[in-house]
Amino acid sequence: MDDKTTILELKKALQKFKEERNWEQFHDPKNLAEAISIEAGELQEKFLWRSIGDISRKIENEPDYKKEVEEEFADVVIFCLNFANATGIDISRVVEEKIGKNNKKYPSEKAKGKHTKYNKL
Amino acid sequence: MDDKTTILELKKALQKFKEERNWEQFHDPKNLAEAISIEAGELQEKFLWRSIGDISRKIENEPDYKKEVEEEFADVVIFCLNFANATGIDISRVVEEKIGKNNKKYPSEKAKGKHTKYNKL
Amino acid sequence: MDDKTTILELKKALQKFKEERNWEQFHDPKNLAEAISIEAGELQEKFLWRSIGDISRKIENEPDYKKEVEEEFADVVIFCLNFANATGIDISRVVEEKIGKNNKKYPSEKAKGKHTKYNKL
Amino acid sequence: MDDKTTILELKKALQKFKEERNWEQFHDPKNLAEAISIEAGELQEKFLWRSIGDISRKIENEPDYKKEVEEEFADVVIFCLNFANATGIDISRVVEEKIGKNNKKYPSEKAKGKHTKYNKL
Repeated sequence: MDDKTTILELKKALQKFKEERNWEQFHDPKNLAEAISIEAGELQEKFLWRSIGDISRKIENEPDYKKEVEEEFADVVIFCLNFANATGIDISRVVEEKIGKNNKKYPSEKAKGKHTKYNKL
Repeated sequence: MDDKTTILELKKALQKFKEERNWEQFHDPKNLAEAISIEAGELQEKFLWRSIGDISRKIENEPDYKKEVEEEFADVVIFCLNFANATGIDISRVVEEKIGKNNKKYPSEKAKGKHTKYNKL
Repeated sequence: MDDKTTILELKKALQKFKEERNWEQFHDPKNLAEAISIEAGELQEKFLWRSIGDISRKIENEPDYKKEVEEEFADVVIFCLNFANATGIDISRVVEEKIGKNNKKYPSEKAKGKHTKYNKL
Repeated sequence: MDDKTTILELKKALQKFKEERNWEQFHDPKNLAEAISIEAGELQEKFLWRSIGDISRKIENEPDYKKEVEEEFADVVIFCLNFANATGIDISRVVEEKIGKNNKKYPSEKAKGKHTKYNKL
């Protein structure tokens, strides 16, 4: 569905959910930033103690586990959309601007195959 | 731009960025979940010590501060898109499924105006 | 008990717990840093949607809630102690060093009553 | 120094630091829980992209890196101590209680060598 769904459509679905519950009052940017962080922690917990590569890349092989990961991930994205709604941020714009900036910070010829931070490249 | 941009377009922009740098090897779901969490912490830091409501909702009034918030937020979203690319998750699908689930957990008549957790509603 | 208990005593209690379960193998600093972050998220969740001051300072008044906060907080501290055990860090030393450093970054006459970050003081 | 320093001594050092700056007003438990989480993210960042075991356990071999890790870790501990000061929590007590509880959730004979969550043991 990602090929057809616009960011605005997802934003609107969350906006509707919020309005139906009169939750506007709780959706303060500070609270929502907190919520993103909390949900990100729950997503992370799904990978804690797992080693890198051998297991974590093969989530396809474990349908129950994959389902859990998807749900936690959805929570993170949902609060990101709520955050954008609450602050009026255009997600596509800020993402594209940041990619542009990262293109300069991490020029492909210098950053190729390295995970060095830009200030040490 | 959110009214025109599909999720897939953003995903592809990040996929291209990654491939140009040969960073596929680092984009393990465990690492990316960690990265989302780290960036969410940086976003949160922008609101630390600020009180709720009176200040944090008025980021429009402080253009420099707003710019910083946007950049940190973009980082969170970028790692979410990278996570979805690495795991093959269709974002629109998992978000819609979760909204459907939350509709049952938080029926609007019961949850209206309350921030009570579903298991205590 | 904090007046009598040394840091080392707490560290040893956790060391014993780990050795009895043969968990040394999982206690990699990267994993433990992740675990601290995950538990910190769970602690934070106890305060999400609560406003500042009026409610959050009075946890004494809600014994069940206080118990939950204490448990989540204990988890954060436990993983900090595990992290120190795994890396050989002397907690008292690094804390004192950091306080010394912060004393210079935030001289009391300049930082009094302000939550401004040191680089903007 | 951990063999000689009591928890209370560290708590008092932070209490003094706070009082000298009149920061009591900012040290709300919600804010401090946020701060712990933010600092935990910064600690984690030191290990992001590093693989487990081969590198992350050998921080002794990289003195500059070790110093950075120690400082980030100290920040986490400092906000934990501030949190305990603000809420009146006796750290030794809640840690011992939680270890007691974990002893029941993770009996050593069942949990030996496994990182399985207690509800699936």
